[in-house]
Amino acid sequence: MPTYFFFPDILLYLLDMIGVIACAIAGTLLAQHKGFDISGCILVSMANAIGGGTFRDMALDRHPLFWMTDLNYVIVITLTSLALQMFFHLYHKIDRALRLFDAIGLAAFSVIGFKVALAQGSSAIIAVMMGVWTAIIGGMIRDVICNEIPLVLQREIYITASVFGACLYLLLIKMGVRTGVSEFAMLVSIFAVRMLALRFDWHLPSIRLVK
Amino acid sequence: MPTYFFFPDILLYLLDMIGVIACAIAGTLLAQHKGFDISGCILVSMANAIGGGTFRDMALDRHPLFWMTDLNYVIVITLTSLALQMFFHLYHKIDRALRLFDAIGLAAFSVIGFKVALAQGSSAIIAVMMGVWTAIIGGMIRDVICNEIPLVLQREIYITASVFGACLYLLLIKMGVRTGVSEFAMLVSIFAVRMLALRFDWHLPSIRLVK
Amino acid sequence: MPTYFFFPDILLYLLDMIGVIACAIAGTLLAQHKGFDISGCILVSMANAIGGGTFRDMALDRHPLFWMTDLNYVIVITLTSLALQMFFHLYHKIDRALRLFDAIGLAAFSVIGFKVALAQGSSAIIAVMMGVWTAIIGGMIRDVICNEIPLVLQREIYITASVFGACLYLLLIKMGVRTGVSEFAMLVSIFAVRMLALRFDWHLPSIRLVK
Repeated sequence: MPTYFFFPDILLYLLDMIGVIACAIAGTLLAQHKGFDISGCILVSMANAIGGGTFRDMALDRHPLFWMTDLNYVIVITLTSLALQMFFHLYHKIDRALRLFDAIGLAAFSVIGFKVALAQGSSAIIAVMMGVWTAIIGGMIRDVICNEIPLVLQREIYITASVFGACLYLLLIKMGVRTGVSEFAMLVSIFAVRMLALRFDWHLPSIRLVK
Repeated sequence: MPTYFFFPDILLYLLDMIGVIACAIAGTLLAQHKGFDISGCILVSMANAIGGGTFRDMALDRHPLFWMTDLNYVIVITLTSLALQMFFHLYHKIDRALRLFDAIGLAAFSVIGFKVALAQGSSAIIAVMMGVWTAIIGGMIRDVICNEIPLVLQREIYITASVFGACLYLLLIKMGVRTGVSEFAMLVSIFAVRMLALRFDWHLPSIRLVK
Repeated sequence: MPTYFFFPDILLYLLDMIGVIACAIAGTLLAQHKGFDISGCILVSMANAIGGGTFRDMALDRHPLFWMTDLNYVIVITLTSLALQMFFHLYHKIDRALRLFDAIGLAAFSVIGFKVALAQGSSAIIAVMMGVWTAIIGGMIRDVICNEIPLVLQREIYITASVFGACLYLLLIKMGVRTGVSEFAMLVSIFAVRMLALRFDWHLPSIRLVK
């Protein structure tokens, strides 16, 4: 199991797994849409679910990679992808749940990436980046493999929510709040920003000072 | 030279090089089709031939990377790509040979990736994944660079053949068969499954229990 | 700060930063063209500017990555991308400067990648590859994320200029020239080849001995 130091480990781990399931579902759906076969769908699911954390661990020289010591990741992804491929006709029943799961995953992945980087001795700015990367690189790899323009870069408040939560964490720590509480606030705030963005159709604009 | 422990090293090394040549040819063909220049074709060839092993070595924290200590890889890829670019008009004469080479490469890359992971102390499930990755990530990178949807994920029995061979290996080991023999069986079975899939136009279906 | 051993460090560092700015601008322009939001543009800029060096450092097992210890990279990229997004209407005034900056970046990135590999004990052929990778992989990742076929592989003299400069360096060293002078010659020659290629519209042909 990855080393999550300050927070109720088991809760964060469960939220992490919910995020992994959301990624596995999203990966399988897009892969099926592209006509990939059974193992192709599983592979895209894995890229989506563990791609971000893999890249983070490689960048931080953190070995073995998190999914090599905790086989639950690979098992959960494979079973989720197979189940979805078999019961695809039930998909519309989970459509709304998927968005919720996805937002949970965004929050959990961001917190984990951020904490891992701090635990490795990274500076705050690098830790914020690692939180973002953990949360979005998996989805980018999925889209790149499937020859799509990455969703996370264009349509929705993903990166912004992750950065917002990390900044809130740093602010709280600076104010003397305990790490466990700050982490919880980071987690909840990322989730809330993402859900509000979905609910009210928020988009980050392009900025131009004049036309 | 990479450390292949149990098997007649020299044979596996030769099969590996045949696979590298097949990858270099496939990479150059697609790159030429896309209008890349001489060095662009060589670069795509390299991505195709050593991309999978590079990613495996990085994931397993295995340094220096296999092609950094054995320059034969880089030299063989460069010469193959240059030769193909110069004598492209002879390509139709090697079209059939390429499929054979490609299947040999799939088998050799899978066995090598699988063995390397075991030698690094990985669990069986991770070793199976590393065999698959070594065999297919190069082709995926080639297709992604060239803006194509990865062939290995959709059309043909690639991943399945690799997983099948690895499972056969694990079964044989469990039955007490010597590692050298088990490796040979893994190699031959992957090659056989791939060639049979080509010969009889096998495809892995999408699975759906109901429409 | 990365360890550049033999050369007037500060000059190379400045040229490096000019290249980083050029990459950040090119990344932001393409990302805006694709309709990415503010943070999406920044992320593509980062991929473009530090992607090549990140991959080089990972391949050479050189940790922490160069931009983790010198935060100037991340800061310069972010500010450049934000400034360009705000003052996009002034872009046509820097169009010509961008080509110049880009050529400076190609030269600086190549020299740095080449030197870093030599300093890590790589052989000459690997060092040449690392120079090329440092210079072009960032642009390739940018194009892949944005679903474009990588420019550096098709249209222009990028790889060739980098390889030419590295070969010149190796030749000069063999002739007994001091490393500082050889590095300067490598830097200038890459820049010159690239600018001449732009000026006279040079392209590397596809090679075919017969039609």
